Amino acid sequence: MKERKVSNETIRRLALYLRCLRKLLKSNINIVSSNQISDTLNVSSEQFRKDLSYFGSLGKRGVGYRVDTLIRHLEKIFGIDEECNIIVVGAGKLGSALVAYPGFMNFNFRIVAAFDIDRKKIGRVWEGVKIESIDRISDIVKKHKVHLAMLTVPAESAQIIAEKLVKCGIKGILNFAPVNLELPESVSLLNVDMATELMTLRYLSGKPCRG
Amino acid sequence: MKERKVSNETIRRLALYLRCLRKLLKSNINIVSSNQISDTLNVSSEQFRKDLSYFGSLGKRGVGYRVDTLIRHLEKIFGIDEECNIIVVGAGKLGSALVAYPGFMNFNFRIVAAFDIDRKKIGRVWEGVKIESIDRISDIVKKHKVHLAMLTVPAESAQIIAEKLVKCGIKGILNFAPVNLELPESVSLLNVDMATELMTLRYLSGKPCRG
Repeated sequence: MKERKVSNETIRRLALYLRCLRKLLKSNINIVSSNQISDTLNVSSEQFRKDLSYFGSLGKRGVGYRVDTLIRHLEKIFGIDEECNIIVVGAGKLGSALVAYPGFMNFNFRIVAAFDIDRKKIGRVWEGVKIESIDRISDIVKKHKVHLAMLTVPAESAQIIAEKLVKCGIKGILNFAPVNLELPESVSLLNVDMATELMTLRYLSGKPCRG
Repeated sequence: MKERKVSNETIRRLALYLRCLRKLLKSNINIVSSNQISDTLNVSSEQFRKDLSYFGSLGKRGVGYRVDTLIRHLEKIFGIDEECNIIVVGAGKLGSALVAYPGFMNFNFRIVAAFDIDRKKIGRVWEGVKIESIDRISDIVKKHKVHLAMLTVPAESAQIIAEKLVKCGIKGILNFAPVNLELPESVSLLNVDMATELMTLRYLSGKPCRG
Protein backbone atom coordinates (compact mmCIF):
# COMPACT_ATOMS: atom_id res chain seq x y z
CA MET A 1 0.00 0.00 0.00
CA LYS A 2 2.84 2.38 0.76
CA GLU A 3 3.62 4.69 -2.13
CA ARG A 4 7.14 6.10 -2.19
CA LYS A 5 6.35 9.42 -3.81
CA VAL A 6 3.94 10.59 -1.12
CA SER A 7 5.28 13.81 0.43
CA ASN A 8 5.46 14.63 4.13
CA GLU A 9 2.88 17.34 3.49
CA THR A 10 0.43 14.80 2.09
CA ILE A 11 0.94 12.56 5.12
CA ARG A 12 0.36 15.50 7.47
CA ARG A 13 -2.84 16.37 5.64
CA LEU A 14 -4.04 12.75 5.78
CA ALA A 15 -3.59 12.89 9.56
CA LEU A 16 -5.66 16.09 9.65
CA TYR A 17 -8.37 14.47 7.52
CA LEU A 18 -8.50 11.62 9.99
CA ARG A 19 -9.00 13.96 12.95
CA CYS A 20 -11.66 15.93 11.06
CA LEU A 21 -13.53 12.77 9.97
CA ARG A 22 -13.58 11.41 13.51
CA LYS A 23 -15.12 14.67 14.66
CA LEU A 24 -17.76 14.44 11.93
CA LEU A 25 -18.60 10.87 12.95
CA LYS A 26 -19.03 12.00 16.55
CA SER A 27 -21.56 14.53 15.26
CA ASN A 28 -23.37 11.66 13.50
CA ILE A 29 -22.37 12.78 10.02
CA ASN A 30 -22.01 9.62 7.95
CA ILE A 31 -21.43 10.90 4.43
CA VAL A 32 -19.08 13.76 3.56
CA SER A 33 -18.22 15.52 0.32
CA SER A 34 -14.72 16.68 -0.57
CA ASN A 35 -16.10 20.22 -0.51
CA GLN A 36 -17.16 19.87 3.12
CA ILE A 37 -13.69 18.67 4.10
CA SER A 38 -12.22 21.45 2.01
CA ASP A 39 -14.27 24.13 3.81
CA THR A 40 -13.42 22.79 7.26
CA LEU A 41 -9.70 22.31 6.77
CA ASN A 42 -8.81 25.07 4.33
CA VAL A 43 -7.49 22.52 1.83
CA SER A 44 -8.82 22.54 -1.73
CA SER A 45 -11.17 19.70 -2.62
CA GLU A 46 -8.79 18.82 -5.50
CA GLN A 47 -5.96 18.48 -2.97
CA PHE A 48 -8.11 16.29 -0.74
CA ARG A 49 -9.01 13.95 -3.60
CA LYS A 50 -5.39 13.88 -4.80
CA ASP A 51 -4.07 13.05 -1.33
CA LEU A 52 -6.50 10.16 -0.98
CA SER A 53 -5.79 8.90 -4.49
CA TYR A 54 -2.23 7.93 -3.50
CA PHE A 55 -3.78 5.13 -1.50
CA GLY A 56 -6.68 4.28 -3.82
CA SER A 57 -9.76 6.48 -4.09
CA LEU A 58 -12.82 5.76 -2.01
CA GLY A 59 -15.34 8.41 -3.01
CA LYS A 60 -17.95 8.47 -5.72
CA ARG A 61 -18.41 11.63 -7.74
CA GLY A 62 -21.62 13.33 -6.66
CA VAL A 63 -22.14 10.89 -3.78
CA GLY A 64 -19.29 11.67 -1.43
CA TYR A 65 -17.37 9.55 1.03
CA ARG A 66 -18.60 7.25 3.75
CA VAL A 67 -17.06 8.73 6.87
CA ASP A 68 -16.58 5.42 8.72
CA THR A 69 -14.97 3.73 5.70
CA LEU A 70 -12.62 6.64 5.17
CA ILE A 71 -11.64 6.65 8.85
CA ARG A 72 -10.80 2.93 8.77
CA HIS A 73 -8.85 3.45 5.55
CA LEU A 74 -6.77 6.26 7.05
CA GLU A 75 -6.25 4.37 10.30
CA LYS A 76 -4.88 1.50 8.28
CA ILE A 77 -2.49 3.78 6.36
CA PHE A 78 -1.11 5.04 9.66
CA GLY A 79 -1.14 1.65 11.36
CA ILE A 80 -3.24 3.07 14.19
CA ASP A 81 -4.93 -0.25 14.87
CA GLU A 82 -1.84 -1.22 16.88
CA GLU A 83 -0.41 0.62 19.87
CA CYS A 84 2.82 2.50 19.24
CA ASN A 85 5.21 2.87 22.16
CA ILE A 86 7.20 6.08 22.28
CA ILE A 87 9.66 7.76 24.64
CA VAL A 88 10.32 11.38 25.62
CA VAL A 89 13.99 12.23 25.97
CA GLY A 90 14.57 15.32 28.10
CA ALA A 91 12.31 15.76 31.13
CA GLY A 92 12.23 19.56 31.21
CA LYS A 93 9.13 21.71 30.92
CA LEU A 94 8.48 20.78 27.31
CA GLY A 95 9.03 17.09 28.08
CA SER A 96 6.55 17.36 30.94
CA ALA A 97 4.02 19.06 28.64
CA LEU A 98 4.38 16.25 26.09
CA VAL A 99 3.92 13.56 28.73
CA ALA A 100 0.69 15.28 29.79
CA TYR A 101 -0.49 16.04 26.24
CA PRO A 102 -3.90 14.43 25.78
CA GLY A 103 -3.80 14.30 21.96
CA PHE A 104 -1.48 11.32 21.52
CA MET A 105 -3.77 8.68 22.95
CA ASN A 106 -6.40 9.23 20.23
CA PHE A 107 -3.88 7.92 17.74
CA ASN A 108 -2.80 4.97 19.85
CA PHE A 109 0.55 6.38 20.93
CA ARG A 110 1.72 5.41 24.42
CA ILE A 111 4.59 7.15 26.17
CA VAL A 112 6.37 4.35 28.04
CA ALA A 113 9.13 6.40 29.69
CA ALA A 114 10.78 9.82 29.90
CA PHE A 115 14.54 10.22 30.27
CA ASP A 116 16.81 12.78 31.85
CA ILE A 117 20.32 13.15 33.24
CA ASP A 118 19.16 15.16 36.28
CA ARG A 119 19.37 12.87 39.31
CA LYS A 120 16.75 14.93 41.11
CA LYS A 121 14.18 14.11 38.43
CA ILE A 122 15.02 10.44 37.92
CA GLY A 123 12.52 8.15 39.60
CA ARG A 124 9.67 10.65 39.60
CA VAL A 125 6.43 9.66 37.92
CA TRP A 126 4.51 12.13 35.73
CA GLU A 127 1.02 11.15 34.60
CA GLY A 128 1.94 7.53 35.11
CA VAL A 129 5.18 7.89 33.13
CA LYS A 130 8.42 7.24 35.03
CA ILE A 131 11.48 9.43 34.51
CA GLU A 132 14.44 7.17 33.94
CA SER A 133 18.18 7.76 33.80
CA ILE A 134 19.36 8.31 30.27
CA ASP A 135 21.70 5.32 30.81
CA ARG A 136 18.66 3.05 30.77
CA ILE A 137 17.47 4.07 27.27
CA SER A 138 18.84 1.00 25.53
CA ASP A 139 17.17 -1.45 27.94
CA ILE A 140 13.80 0.29 27.89
CA VAL A 141 13.80 0.74 24.11
CA LYS A 142 14.40 -3.00 23.72
CA LYS A 143 11.93 -4.03 26.40
CA HIS A 144 9.04 -1.96 25.01
CA LYS A 145 10.03 -2.28 21.34
CA VAL A 146 10.19 1.50 21.01
CA HIS A 147 11.04 2.90 17.58
CA LEU A 148 10.04 6.54 17.93
CA ALA A 149 11.36 9.23 20.28
CA MET A 150 10.46 12.84 21.02
CA LEU A 151 13.64 14.79 21.73
CA THR A 152 13.28 17.73 24.12
CA VAL A 153 16.83 18.17 25.42
CA PRO A 154 18.69 21.51 25.18
CA ALA A 155 20.08 22.41 21.75
CA GLU A 156 23.68 21.89 22.90
CA SER A 157 23.18 18.20 23.70
CA ALA A 158 20.60 17.30 21.04
CA GLN A 159 23.04 15.91 18.45
CA ILE A 160 24.90 13.64 20.87
CA ILE A 161 21.69 12.36 22.46
CA ALA A 162 20.11 11.79 19.03
CA GLU A 163 23.12 9.68 18.03
CA LYS A 164 22.73 7.68 21.23
CA LEU A 165 19.06 7.08 20.36
CA VAL A 166 19.98 5.86 16.90
CA LYS A 167 22.50 3.44 18.43
CA CYS A 168 19.75 2.11 20.67
CA GLY A 169 17.61 1.29 17.64
CA ILE A 170 15.35 4.35 17.40
CA LYS A 171 14.12 4.75 13.80
CA GLY A 172 12.30 8.07 13.99
CA ILE A 173 12.91 11.25 15.99
CA LEU A 174 10.53 14.16 16.54
CA ASN A 175 13.02 16.86 17.42
CA PHE A 176 11.95 19.87 19.49
CA ALA A 177 15.48 21.22 20.03
CA PRO A 178 16.20 24.27 17.86
CA VAL A 179 19.13 22.68 16.05
CA ASN A 180 19.74 20.87 12.75
CA LEU A 181 20.48 17.26 13.58
CA GLU A 182 22.67 15.17 11.30
CA LEU A 183 21.52 11.57 11.34
CA PRO A 184 21.88 8.50 9.11
CA GLU A 185 19.41 8.43 6.22
CA SER A 186 17.82 5.31 7.64
CA VAL A 187 16.43 7.39 10.52
CA SER A 188 13.35 9.57 9.94
CA LEU A 189 13.59 13.03 11.41
CA LEU A 190 10.90 15.69 11.81
CA ASN A 191 11.42 19.00 13.54
CA VAL A 192 8.92 20.95 15.60
CA ASP A 193 10.55 24.34 15.67
CA MET A 194 8.54 26.85 17.65
CA ALA A 195 10.75 29.86 16.91
CA THR A 196 10.63 29.17 13.17
CA GLU A 197 6.85 28.91 13.29
CA LEU A 198 6.63 32.18 15.16
CA MET A 199 8.94 33.87 12.65
CA THR A 200 6.79 32.57 9.82
CA LEU A 201 3.67 33.86 11.54
CA ARG A 202 5.31 37.23 12.08
CA TYR A 203 6.07 37.43 8.38
CA LEU A 204 2.62 36.25 7.28
CA SER A 205 0.80 38.68 9.51
CA GLY A 206 2.63 41.54 7.83
CA LYS A 207 5.30 42.18 10.48
CA PRO A 208 2.92 44.27 12.55
CA CYS A 209 5.02 43.72 15.67
CA ARG A 210 6.48 47.17 15.25
CA GLY A 211 3.35 48.58 16.81
CA MET B 1 10.19 43.83 -0.65
CA LYS B 2 7.34 41.50 0.27
CA GLU B 3 6.48 39.11 -2.53
CA ARG B 4 2.95 37.71 -2.46
CA LYS B 5 3.68 34.37 -4.02
CA VAL B 6 6.16 33.25 -1.37
CA SER B 7 4.88 30.06 0.29
CA ASN B 8 4.83 29.32 4.00
CA GLU B 9 7.37 26.59 3.33
CA THR B 10 9.78 29.09 1.79
CA ILE B 11 9.37 31.41 4.78
CA ARG B 12 10.03 28.52 7.17
CA ARG B 13 13.18 27.59 5.27
CA LEU B 14 14.37 31.22 5.28
CA ALA B 15 14.06 31.16 9.07
CA LEU B 16 16.12 27.96 9.15
CA TYR B 17 18.77 29.52 6.91
CA LEU B 18 18.99 32.43 9.31
CA ARG B 19 19.59 30.16 12.29
CA CYS B 20 22.16 28.14 10.36
CA LEU B 21 24.00 31.26 9.13
CA ARG B 22 24.19 32.69 12.63
CA LYS B 23 25.77 29.46 13.80
CA LEU B 24 28.32 29.63 10.98
CA LEU B 25 29.17 33.22 11.89
CA LYS B 26 29.72 32.18 15.51
CA SER B 27 32.22 29.61 14.20
CA ASN B 28 33.97 32.44 12.30
CA ILE B 29 32.85 31.23 8.90
CA ASN B 30 32.43 34.36 6.77
CA ILE B 31 31.72 32.98 3.30
CA VAL B 32 29.36 30.12 2.58
CA SER B 33 28.35 28.29 -0.60
CA SER B 34 24.82 27.13 -1.34
CA ASN B 35 26.22 23.58 -1.24
CA GLN B 36 27.39 24.02 2.34
CA ILE B 37 23.96 25.24 3.40
CA SER B 38 22.42 22.41 1.43
CA ASP B 39 24.53 19.77 3.21
CA THR B 40 23.80 21.20 6.65
CA LEU B 41 20.06 21.66 6.28
CA ASN B 42 19.10 18.85 3.93
CA VAL B 43 17.69 21.33 1.43
CA SER B 44 18.90 21.23 -2.18
CA SER B 45 21.22 24.07 -3.21
CA GLU B 46 18.76 24.89 -6.01
CA GLN B 47 16.00 25.29 -3.42
CA PHE B 48 18.22 27.51 -1.29
CA ARG B 49 19.03 29.79 -4.24
CA LYS B 50 15.38 29.84 -5.32
CA ASP B 51 14.16 30.75 -1.82
CA LEU B 52 16.61 33.64 -1.61
CA SER B 53 15.79 34.82 -5.12
CA TYR B 54 12.27 35.84 -4.03
CA PHE B 55 13.87 38.69 -2.16
CA GLY B 56 16.71 39.47 -4.58
CA SER B 57 19.76 37.24 -4.90
CA LEU B 58 22.91 38.00 -2.95
CA GLY B 59 25.39 35.33 -3.97
CA LYS B 60 27.89 35.20 -6.78
CA ARG B 61 28.28 31.99 -8.72
CA GLY B 62 31.52 30.31 -7.70
CA VAL B 63 32.15 32.83 -4.93
CA GLY B 64 29.38 32.11 -2.47
CA TYR B 65 27.55 34.28 0.01
CA ARG B 66 28.88 36.64 2.65
CA VAL B 67 27.45 35.24 5.85
CA ASP B 68 27.03 38.60 7.63
CA THR B 69 25.31 40.22 4.63
CA LEU B 70 22.94 37.30 4.25
CA ILE B 71 22.09 37.36 7.97
CA ARG B 72 21.25 41.08 7.83
CA HIS B 73 19.20 40.51 4.70
CA LEU B 74 17.16 37.73 6.32
CA GLU B 75 16.77 39.68 9.56
CA LYS B 76 15.32 42.52 7.53
CA ILE B 77 12.88 40.21 5.74
CA PHE B 78 11.59 39.02 9.10
CA GLY B 79 11.69 42.44 10.74
CA ILE B 80 13.90 41.09 13.52
CA ASP B 81 15.61 44.41 14.08
CA GLU B 82 12.58 45.42 16.18
CA GLU B 83 11.25 43.64 19.24
CA CYS B 84 7.99 41.74 18.77
CA ASN B 85 5.70 41.44 21.78
CA ILE B 86 3.72 38.22 22.03
CA ILE B 87 1.34 36.58 24.50
CA VAL B 88 0.72 33.01 25.59
CA VAL B 89 -2.93 32.14 26.07
CA GLY B 90 -3.42 29.10 28.28
CA ALA B 91 -1.07 28.72 31.23
CA GLY B 92 -0.98 24.94 31.39
CA LYS B 93 2.11 22.77 31.03
CA LEU B 94 2.63 23.64 27.38
CA GLY B 95 2.13 27.33 28.11
CA SER B 96 4.70 27.12 30.87
CA ALA B 97 7.14 25.37 28.52
CA LEU B 98 6.68 28.12 25.93
CA VAL B 99 7.23 30.88 28.50
CA ALA B 100 10.50 29.18 29.48
CA TYR B 101 11.55 28.34 25.92
CA PRO B 102 14.93 29.95 25.30
CA GLY B 103 14.73 30.01 21.51
CA PHE B 104 12.38 32.98 21.07
CA MET B 105 14.72 35.65 22.37
CA ASN B 106 17.24 35.04 19.57
CA PHE B 107 14.64 36.30 17.16
CA ASN B 108 13.62 39.30 19.24
CA PHE B 109 10.33 37.91 20.46
CA ARG B 110 9.28 38.94 23.96
CA ILE B 111 6.48 37.24 25.85
CA VAL B 112 4.76 40.07 27.73
CA ALA B 113 2.06 38.05 29.50
CA ALA B 114 0.42 34.64 29.83
CA PHE B 115 -3.33 34.24 30.34
CA ASP B 116 -5.53 31.71 32.05
CA ILE B 117 -8.99 31.35 33.57
CA ASP B 118 -7.74 29.41 36.62
CA ARG B 119 -7.84 31.77 39.61
CA LYS B 120 -5.15 29.74 41.36
CA LYS B 121 -2.69 30.52 38.57
CA ILE B 122 -3.55 34.17 38.00
CA GLY B 123 -0.97 36.50 39.56
CA ARG B 124 1.86 33.99 39.51
CA VAL B 125 5.05 34.96 37.70
CA TRP B 126 6.90 32.45 35.51
CA GLU B 127 10.33 33.41 34.22
CA GLY B 128 9.43 37.04 34.68
CA VAL B 129 6.12 36.62 32.84
CA LYS B 130 2.95 37.31 34.83
CA ILE B 131 -0.11 35.13 34.48
CA GLU B 132 -3.11 37.37 33.96
CA SER B 133 -6.84 36.77 33.96
CA ILE B 134 -8.16 36.14 30.48
CA ASP B 135 -10.48 39.14 31.04
CA ARG B 136 -7.44 41.40 30.86
CA ILE B 137 -6.38 40.33 27.35
CA SER B 138 -7.80 43.37 25.59
CA ASP B 139 -6.04 45.87 27.89
CA ILE B 140 -2.70 44.13 27.75
CA VAL B 141 -2.81 43.59 23.99
CA LYS B 142 -3.43 47.32 23.54
CA LYS B 143 -0.87 48.41 26.11
CA HIS B 144 1.96 46.32 24.66
CA LYS B 145 0.86 46.57 21.03
CA VAL B 146 0.68 42.79 20.77
CA HIS B 147 -0.30 41.32 17.39
CA LEU B 148 0.73 37.68 17.80
CA ALA B 149 -0.49 35.04 20.23
CA MET B 150 0.42 31.44 21.02
CA LEU B 151 -2.71 29.51 21.87
CA THR B 152 -2.28 26.61 24.30
CA VAL B 153 -5.77 26.18 25.74
CA PRO B 154 -7.64 22.84 25.62
CA ALA B 155 -9.16 21.87 22.26
CA GLU B 156 -12.72 22.42 23.54
CA SER B 157 -12.18 26.12 24.25
CA ALA B 158 -9.71 26.97 21.47
CA GLN B 159 -12.25 28.31 18.95
CA ILE B 160 -14.01 30.62 21.39
CA ILE B 161 -10.75 31.95 22.83
CA ALA B 162 -9.30 32.43 19.34
CA GLU B 163 -12.33 34.53 18.40
CA LYS B 164 -11.84 36.60 21.55
CA LEU B 165 -8.20 37.17 20.54
CA VAL B 166 -9.24 38.34 17.09
CA LYS B 167 -11.71 40.78 18.66
CA CYS B 168 -8.88 42.17 20.78
CA GLY B 169 -6.83 42.92 17.65
CA ILE B 170 -4.60 39.84 17.40
CA LYS B 171 -3.49 39.39 13.76
CA GLY B 172 -1.65 36.08 13.97
CA ILE B 173 -2.19 32.92 16.05
CA LEU B 174 0.19 30.04 16.58
CA ASN B 175 -2.27 27.35 17.59
CA PHE B 176 -1.12 24.37 19.67
CA ALA B 177 -4.62 23.03 20.35
CA PRO B 178 -5.42 19.94 18.26
CA VAL B 179 -8.41 21.50 16.53
CA ASN B 180 -9.14 23.25 13.22
CA LEU B 181 -9.85 26.87 14.01
CA GLU B 182 -12.12 28.91 11.77
CA LEU B 183 -10.96 32.52 11.69
CA PRO B 184 -11.41 35.53 9.42
CA GLU B 185 -9.05 35.56 6.46
CA SER B 186 -7.39 38.70 7.76
CA VAL B 187 -5.92 36.67 10.63
CA SER B 188 -2.84 34.50 9.99
CA LEU B 189 -3.04 31.06 11.52
CA LEU B 190 -0.34 28.43 11.88
CA ASN B 191 -0.79 25.14 13.69
CA VAL B 192 1.78 23.24 15.70
CA ASP B 193 0.16 19.86 15.88
CA MET B 194 2.23 17.37 17.84
CA ALA B 195 0.00 14.35 17.24
CA THR B 196 -0.01 14.97 13.49
CA GLU B 197 3.77 15.23 13.47
CA LEU B 198 4.06 12.00 15.40
CA MET B 199 1.65 10.27 13.00
CA THR B 200 3.71 11.51 10.07
CA LEU B 201 6.89 10.24 11.72
CA ARG B 202 5.27 6.88 12.38
CA TYR B 203 4.38 6.62 8.71
CA LEU B 204 7.80 7.78 7.47
CA SER B 205 9.69 5.37 9.68
CA GLY B 206 7.79 2.48 8.12
CA LYS B 207 5.23 1.94 10.88
CA PRO B 208 7.67 -0.14 12.91
CA CYS B 209 5.69 0.45 16.11
CA ARG B 210 4.20 -2.97 15.79
CA GLY B 211 7.40 -4.37 17.30
